[in-house]
Formats: sequence, structure tokens, C-alpha cells
Amino acid sequence: MKELKRKAYERALEDLYEDLVSLQRWIITNGKRVALVFEGRDAAGKGGVIKAISAPLNSRYTRVVALPKPTERESSQWYFQRYVEHLPAAGELVLFDRSWYNRAGVEHVMGFCTPAQYRRFLEDCPAFERLVTDDGLILLKYWLAVDQEYQEQRFAERASDPLKRFKISPVDLEARTQYAAYGAARDAMIAATDTPWAPWFVADFNDQRRGRLDVIRHLLARLPERARPDKPLKLPRLARKPAREHLAD
Amino acid sequence: MKELKRKAYERALEDLYEDLVSLQRWIITNGKRVALVFEGRDAAGKGGVIKAISAPLNSRYTRVVALPKPTERESSQWYFQRYVEHLPAAGELVLFDRSWYNRAGVEHVMGFCTPAQYRRFLEDCPAFERLVTDDGLILLKYWLAVDQEYQEQRFAERASDPLKRFKISPVDLEARTQYAAYGAARDAMIAATDTPWAPWFVADFNDQRRGRLDVIRHLLARLPERARPDKPLKLPRLARKPAREHLAD
Amino acid sequence: MKELKRKAYERALEDLYEDLVSLQRWIITNGKRVALVFEGRDAAGKGGVIKAISAPLNSRYTRVVALPKPTERESSQWYFQRYVEHLPAAGELVLFDRSWYNRAGVEHVMGFCTPAQYRRFLEDCPAFERLVTDDGLILLKYWLAVDQEYQEQRFAERASDPLKRFKISPVDLEARTQYAAYGAARDAMIAATDTPWAPWFVADFNDQRRGRLDVIRHLLARLPERARPDKPLKLPRLARKPAREHLAD
Amino acid sequence: MKELKRKAYERALEDLYEDLVSLQRWIITNGKRVALVFEGRDAAGKGGVIKAISAPLNSRYTRVVALPKPTERESSQWYFQRYVEHLPAAGELVLFDRSWYNRAGVEHVMGFCTPAQYRRFLEDCPAFERLVTDDGLILLKYWLAVDQEYQEQRFAERASDPLKRFKISPVDLEARTQYAAYGAARDAMIAATDTPWAPWFVADFNDQRRGRLDVIRHLLARLPERARPDKPLKLPRLARKPAREHLAD
Ligand SMILES: Nc1ncnc2c1ncn2[C@@H]1O[C@H](COP(=O)(O)OP(=O)(O)O)[C@@H](O)[C@H]1O
Ligand SMILES: Nc1ncnc2c1ncn2[C@@H]1O[C@H](COP(=O)(O)OP(=O)(O)O)[C@@H](O)[C@H]1O
Ligand SMILES: Nc1ncnc2c1ncn2[C@@H]1O[C@H](COP(=O)(O)OP(=O)(O)O)[C@@H](O)[C@H]1O
Ligand SMILES: Nc1ncnc2c1ncn2[C@@H]1O[C@H](COP(=O)(O)O)[C@@H](O)[C@H]1O
Repeated sequence: MKELKRKAYERALEDLYEDLVSLQRWIITNGKRVALVFEGRDAAGKGGVIKAISAPLNSRYTRVVALPKPTERESSQWYFQRYVEHLPAAGELVLFDRSWYNRAGVEHVMGFCTPAQYRRFLEDCPAFERLVTDDGLILLKYWLAVDQEYQEQRFAERASDPLKRFKISPVDLEARTQYAAYGAARDAMIAATDTPWAPWFVADFNDQRRGRLDVIRHLLARLPERARPDKPLKLPRLARKPAREHLAD
Repeated sequence: MKELKRKAYERALEDLYEDLVSLQRWIITNGKRVALVFEGRDAAGKGGVIKAISAPLNSRYTRVVALPKPTERESSQWYFQRYVEHLPAAGELVLFDRSWYNRAGVEHVMGFCTPAQYRRFLEDCPAFERLVTDDGLILLKYWLAVDQEYQEQRFAERASDPLKRFKISPVDLEARTQYAAYGAARDAMIAATDTPWAPWFVADFNDQRRGRLDVIRHLLARLPERARPDKPLKLPRLARKPAREHLAD
Repeated sequence: MKELKRKAYERALEDLYEDLVSLQRWIITNGKRVALVFEGRDAAGKGGVIKAISAPLNSRYTRVVALPKPTERESSQWYFQRYVEHLPAAGELVLFDRSWYNRAGVEHVMGFCTPAQYRRFLEDCPAFERLVTDDGLILLKYWLAVDQEYQEQRFAERASDPLKRFKISPVDLEARTQYAAYGAARDAMIAATDTPWAPWFVADFNDQRRGRLDVIRHLLARLPERARPDKPLKLPRLARKPAREHLAD
Repeated sequence: MKELKRKAYERALEDLYEDLVSLQRWIITNGKRVALVFEGRDAAGKGGVIKAISAPLNSRYTRVVALPKPTERESSQWYFQRYVEHLPAAGELVLFDRSWYNRAGVEHVMGFCTPAQYRRFLEDCPAFERLVTDDGLILLKYWLAVDQEYQEQRFAERASDPLKRFKISPVDLEARTQYAAYGAARDAMIAATDTPWAPWFVADFNDQRRGRLDVIRHLLARLPERARPDKPLKLPRLARKPAREHLAD
């Protein structure tokens, strides 16, 4: 399939904005809490889809959570503790750019956790997600799939682009040579944590533009109860003619 | 002056992305801390300029802070306390969508604070900003200026757009009739808090697109010590041919 | 049984200090995490036993958590969220003066939560505690039992003591008349949440002094792997004779 | 002067409890915010005096803050940031066991901060304290003075006591040999930061018991506007005879 052209992409994206705003309105007016988790290999396009979704939304009710690697103190706490503090309150939409699933991905593959911690995570994670969703949280998880060919293209672009080079971390470089290991980790992770209360969706991100649109459409289809447009709002007429913002100087 | 056309705007914006990324790289590699404050009337375009700036940036080092109205407990604490907790650590860029300046704006005009609290704020704010900037924080403050004519246009659009109506809060409606009071508040605020260590910049946001480009260019001009592009990064060849992300099923 | 005399109590308590310190040393040097939950009727003596336990301990590793009633925002979050943030990191001992069990006690009896929320809590709580204890947290829960006769005595004392009157909240007054309802709530709570991984212990607090000693002894018996005393530490001799802290003036 | 005997100490201490409780009642009912800072050499007795003060108080309105050494991320933030988050809200009393003054003490003497950071602290600290006290915080600072002779005695006790040995940190051992340097640091610190809005008080802690009583008496004298005892509170009679807490089993 040919890559989606930029123009077509932008038109399609903007057509979705209305529905995204309407979705957010539903979240706010009904005090819903929604968390979206985005996982995938490096350069899969997590940051891009998050920006596409949040572009039209009201930032006072939208948060992107992209946590750095844990501090020593955090490492000694309950594994989910530092994520729990970012879960949404009523009316909020939180987008996780990577998440607690680090343990089943980078931490497992790179040896940043013990095998026992890894196994425990696969067992505990569904129970954790059960608790928070039983309590009313809406939790959807997206895996952005990218074949190595495309991942390599993006790495090559980053390496050659003087401005993007610094985005390539040592962990990324190591990950390149571990493509298969990450694939196995992804399979084990999805097998263990794809549940009715917190399902995984896999999106093809070989073409990022198509991928973004797919994710947004999927999201809109999953959360169909959007708010009806409000009744027309009549603004009272101003008492005097519009002023200018002439600043004192 | 005619409104900047969308196409021209987008081209110009993307031309600035490189420099924004380069600026961020400088922030990260030098462990700088940068906070940008965006203030302005409702519908001036704070959210839009924040999105334009953060679009090309790495989200692990960029945060948008848009705090809701204070809880009762927060109201009883040191006024700056809930903002302090969001100040950037090394390498971070924080964009404040409204800020502690609420006290000199909406709180003052709408009577959400006492006159004494208001006067104290105007006196204390420069001292507070002095402390955090002396400590190394880079703090720039932008006032997005919009004439009432344009503000009214945007309100009218919002009111007629079934999807945007809900963005208009009672506080906004009240603010419409208080255009002049807000103007006086803005003058008093800027007079009291425009300092060498935390200067205010006024940007004309009657045309939002032009306004956004102006703010970004201004920002890039103020923080000129950007990072030199890295030396080329050579990616080692993969040992085997690229794999595909075929998921187990 | 006669009330334990103050003198005898103090001697006995101090005899236990050594072991408490030794227990803390074990926690610190092994990076353990311990949380103790204290529940019981008003005036049962939660604050007193917490003070008795923490008296000899190093405050840098001991925390008392006594949360006020939830703010509106907190109420809209995952019920356990505001408690999770206080769970101990490695080396820490956290003492909860009331806890998430509020939902099964005061909130249920006083109607501060819905019946559905109450039932959900009884179901979810063991799963929550399973997660945090599987992860390594040591969690012990104490119910301080006090017969109404003694509770009434203490209320009467508080009411007549000009300095303690303000400790009696409207919620307390209401609770007096609900002694039986609280008893039923306690039974349902313990039945639903007494688990191998997070057991309840009931301590007789009709005599507070005896009660405190019992709890401490129980605690010491449950966590028997205490640290062996360190090898003697030899302080090098000072190079010159001891100085005085004469302050400049 | 002879050491104060334990018995006499305890009697005197308990005589002060009433006033402490009354002080707290004043804090709570008037929504005051009070922070007490305790500084002094190792083994001076900071922990002890904090426990003596908080013993009779309601723990829901009293907090002890004893922060561990800063994480790397915290070190990169505004120096006061991690302390600000613990400042009291209305009705709260916060006791700092060490504080931001670490920078002028251990950090300066041990070389954990740069000379520039140290000088900046001495300059900024009064401005910081001015801000928070102008905003209504009541801030009192105590230096617990102990001559080296007594400090050595306490170190020797700790070293010989198998249970206290672990309290002696490497930083403490080093501090022993730096008695004079700490003295000079204390003088510089007090000279720079003793202000009308946040005064220092020096208490002689060669005799810890006397020292504790002195601090409490001083505190009570400084905050004299205590609450009048409430009017007698009449508890309505119970409708039936007192029940027993017989637990279901
Ligand atoms: N030592 C570590 N322990 C745990 N997680 C780590 C560690 N190092 C890196 N990570 C995590 O691995 C992920 C990938 O790291 P990196 O490639 O540096 O960042 P990013 O993909 O966000 O650019 C991040 O979520 C990071 O937090
Ligand atoms: N409206 C409420 N919703 C939830 N919990 C509440 C509410 N009011 C009081 N509580 C809780 O009930 C418990 C008892 O309240 P109270 O008697 O006022 O405090 P205490 O027993 O700590 O002196 C406290 O833990 C408090 O947080
Ligand atoms: N590397 C460091 N940087 C900054 N502060 C430190 C460092 N190491 C220790 N401290 C601080 O010095 C003080 C004394 O340390 P220590 O003697 O270990 O603790 P304590 O006196 O609390 O038993 C503590 O407040 C600690 O946080
Ligand atoms: N009662 C209030 N006290 C303080 N700030 C408020 C209050 N109500 C609204 N605000 C602030 O005013 C700004 C505009 O509010 P709104 O138009 O309602 O989104 C936001 O920054 C709010 O946090």
C-alpha cells in the first residue's frame, strides 16, 4: 500500500478533530476518566500519535505522561506506585507515552529487572488493571507495530539529521540489535495482559500517518457515547463597542 | 495587515521546527531549566501557541502545566506552592498555560481573592521570580494581546460551533463584559512584574498564526546559544536482514 | 483485670524500645518496606499506640500518615490512589492512622459513600493488598477494640477537659449513637479483608496501656528477623581537646 | 548545673502538654500555619525535642518532615523546591528535622555543594523566608547547641550501644573531626539568616531534658494567642446501655 500523502492525511485528521473534541466533552461533562497507553518499539511513532490526538483538545483536561527512568527511591517502591499518581481524575484524559509496560519490554530485554520481577509483573499487571478499571477508569492500550525495515529507515533518518541525532539513546542502539527479542517480549506481554477490562489493540505503524488515523478512528469507535452538541449558546450583546488592547506604555 | 494564510503559516512554522529542536537539545545537553508563561485574555490563543511550540519536541522533556482552580486546601497554602512543584528539573522545558498570574488577572477582576492578597501578589511576585531565576531557571513571560473585536469573533465562533460551545465557561462570559477591567489588570500586572530577570513580552495575537510565529521567533532569538549539531552518527549495520513485526496470534 | 499502672507501663515500654530499634535496623539494612494500619472506633487509642511505637525510632525512616477527608478531586480518582502515594520505599516504616478502611467504616456507616462503592471496596481491597504485598510490602493491620463503656468514659473525659473538647468532631458525636452499626461494619470488614497476605489482629484496648504493649509485642513477634547488633564501633580519638559551642555574638 | 532528673523532667513536660494542645487548637481553629525548623550538630537532640513537642498533639494536623538526601533530579531543581511541597496548609503544624539549612551546614562543610551555591543560599534564604512568612506562615527556627564534650559522650554511647551503632553514619564520623568548621558554618548561617520574620533561637542542649523544656516554653511564649478553652460540651445520654465490642468469630 502506498504511503498516505501529507495533504490527504491532514484533511482526514482535521475531519476527526470534531469527534475528538466531542469525545472530550463527553469525558468532561460526565466526569469520566480515560487513560490511553501507547507502547511500541523505539521510533514506532508514539510521540506522533499522542500529539495528533491531543492537538484539538483542551489542555486543562488532557495530560501526557512520559516518565523518565525511575530514581533509586522509586525503584524500591511498589512497581506501579509512580504511575498510579498520574491516573486521571474526573473529566481527565491521560495519554501514557510508554507506561508500566516498560517492565515487560525494555526492562526485561535489557536486563534492568530480574526475571522474578518480570514474571511477577506479567501476573500482577492484569490484577492491577482490573482494580483501576473496576473503579471506573476507561483504559485502552495501543501497540504501534513497525517492521524493522521501517524502523531502520527512521533510525537512519535520525542518524543523518543533525538535529535528531541526539534522540538516539544508547538504549535505542542496543534495541536495534534486539529486534527479535523485543518481538518475543511483545508477544509474551500481550498474551499475558490482553483482558476484557484493558484490551490491547495493535496498529500498523509502518505508515505513520495511516497509523495515526487508524488509532484515532478506533478510539472514537470504542468510545461511542459522545456528547450531543450543546444547544446554541446566545452571547448577550456587548454594552459598548469593542475596545482595543492598547497597552499602557 | 491581512491574515496570514494557512499554507504560508505551516511552511513558516515547519521552518522553525529545526531551531526549536536544536533549542531543546541545548536545554537537555546543558541541563538547563526553562519555564515559559503564557497569559492573555480568554480566547487569545494560549493553547494554540503552546501546541505549536511543543509539536516538534521530545515529550519526555517537555511539560504543559495547566492547573485547575485551587482546591480549598491549596487555597490555604502559600500562594506559589502549587506552582513551585511543577518548575522544571535539569533538561526540562515547562510551558505554563496560565500561571501564578491568575491572581493578578481573573482572581483580581472576578473577586476570587481579597484586595490585600492582590496587592501582596504584585509585591511578592518579582521576589519569587528573582529567587527561582537566580537559582538558574530561565523564565520568559508572554502576554498574548487580542483586541475585543477579534475576541468577540472567536467567542461568536465558539458559541455557534456545537463542539466548542462547552469551552465557554461562566467565567468567560463574565469576562466579556469586563474587557476594560482586564485591560487595567494587565497594565498593573505588567508594570509590577516586568523585571530584568523575568521579563514580559507582548505579542499581537489578533492574527493567531502570525502571533505564534512571532512568539517562536522571539523565543529563539532570546535563547540563542543553541546546540551545535552533533557529529554524524554511524549506525552499525544489522547482522541479519530486517525482520517483520508479525505478531503471534 | 486491673488497669496497668503507669509506672509499670513505662518500664515495660522502654524494655521494648531496644527491640523496636533493632527491628527498624533490620528494615533499613535490608531495604524492607513495612506498613502498619491502625483502625478502631473513635477514642480507641490509635494515636497513642502510634506514638508509643515511633518514640524510639529514627524519624528519617518512619512516617505517620493520617490523611484528612478527601478533596473533591481526590474523591473522583481511584479510591486507593491517595493512599498509594504514601506507601513506604525501601527502609521505611509507615504507620497509617486510619487508612483506606475508612470506606468500610465511617464512609459506610455515615453514608459518605454509595452502597455500590462499599461493596466494591470489600471486594477490591484484598486484591489491592495482594498486589502490594506480592511486590514485597509487609502489611499488618490492627483493630483496636474498645467496649462502649470505656469509649464513653473517654468521650466524657474529653468533653469535660477544656483542652480536649475540640477533639470531638460532629462525626464522633454521631458515631456514639451508632456503636452497633460500627460493630457490624467492623465484622463485615474483617470478614472480607482478613487474608494471609494482609492479616488483621484485634487488640483489646479497654486498657490502653496494656493494649499498646500487646500491639508492640505482637509486632515484634511477627517480624522476628531482626538485625544482629553491629560489631563494636571504635571511634577514633579526637586530635585535640573537645571544643565548646560558644556562639559568636 | 546538674542534669535535670528524669522524674522532674517528665512532670514538667506533662505540665506543658495542656498548653501545647491549646496552642494546636488555636492553630486549627484559626487556620494558622506554623513551621518549626530544628537544626544543630549530629546528636544534638533534634529528634528528641520533636517527639516531645508532638507527643500530645493530634497527628492529623502535625507533620514531621525529615527529608533524605536529595535525588539527582531534586538536586537539579530549585534548591527550595522539595521543601516547599511540605509547607503547612491551614491548621497544620510542621516540624522540620533538618531543613533547607543543610546547604549552610553539612553541604557546605562536607563539600556537597559549590561555594557559589553556598553563597547564593545565604543571600536567597532570607528572601525565601520573607515570601512565605509575608504570606502568613509562622516560622520559628531553633539551633540546638551542644558542646563537643557532650557530643562526644553521646557518640561514645551510640558506638558502644549495639542498637544505636547503626545510627552513626559516615557523615557523622567525618563531622566529629570538623567540630570547628561546623561552628564557623553555624555562625555564618545565623548571621545571614536571623531576621525579624524568621528568627533563630539558640537553645542549650548540653542537658537534653532541660533543652527540650526550654524550647517548648519558648515556643509557648512566642505564640501566646492561644485558644480559650471551649465552653463545656454536654454529651447527650446514650439511648441504651453501653455495648461490648464482642467481635464476630
Ligand atoms: N536503567 C533503566 N531502568 C529502567 N528503565 C530504563 C532504564 N534505562 C532506560 N529505561 C527506560 O527505557 C525506555 C527507553 O529509553 P530511551 O531509549 O533512553 O528513551 P526514549 O525511548 O524515551 O527516547 C524509557 O522509558 C526509559 O525510561
Ligand atoms: N465527608 C467525608 N467523606 C469521607 N470521609 C470523611 C468525611 N468526613 C470525615 N471523614 C473521615 O472520617 C474519619 C473520622 O472523622 P473525624 O472524627 O472528623 O476525625 P478523627 O477521628 O480523625 O478525629 C476521618 O478519617 C475523616 O477523614
Ligand atoms: N551527598 C549529600 N548531599 C547533600 N546532603 C547530604 C548528602 N549526604 C548526606 N546529606 C545530608 O546530611 C545530613 C546528615 O546526614 P546523616 O548523618 O547521614 O543523617 P542523619 O543526621 O539524618 O542521621 C542529612 O540531612 C542528609 O540528608
Ligand atoms: N474560584 C476561582 N478561584 C481562583 N481561580 C479560578 C476560580 N475559578 C476559575 N479560576 C481560574 O480562572 C481561569 C479561567 O477559568 P475558566 O474560564 O472557568 O476555565 C482558570 O485558570 C481557573 O483556574
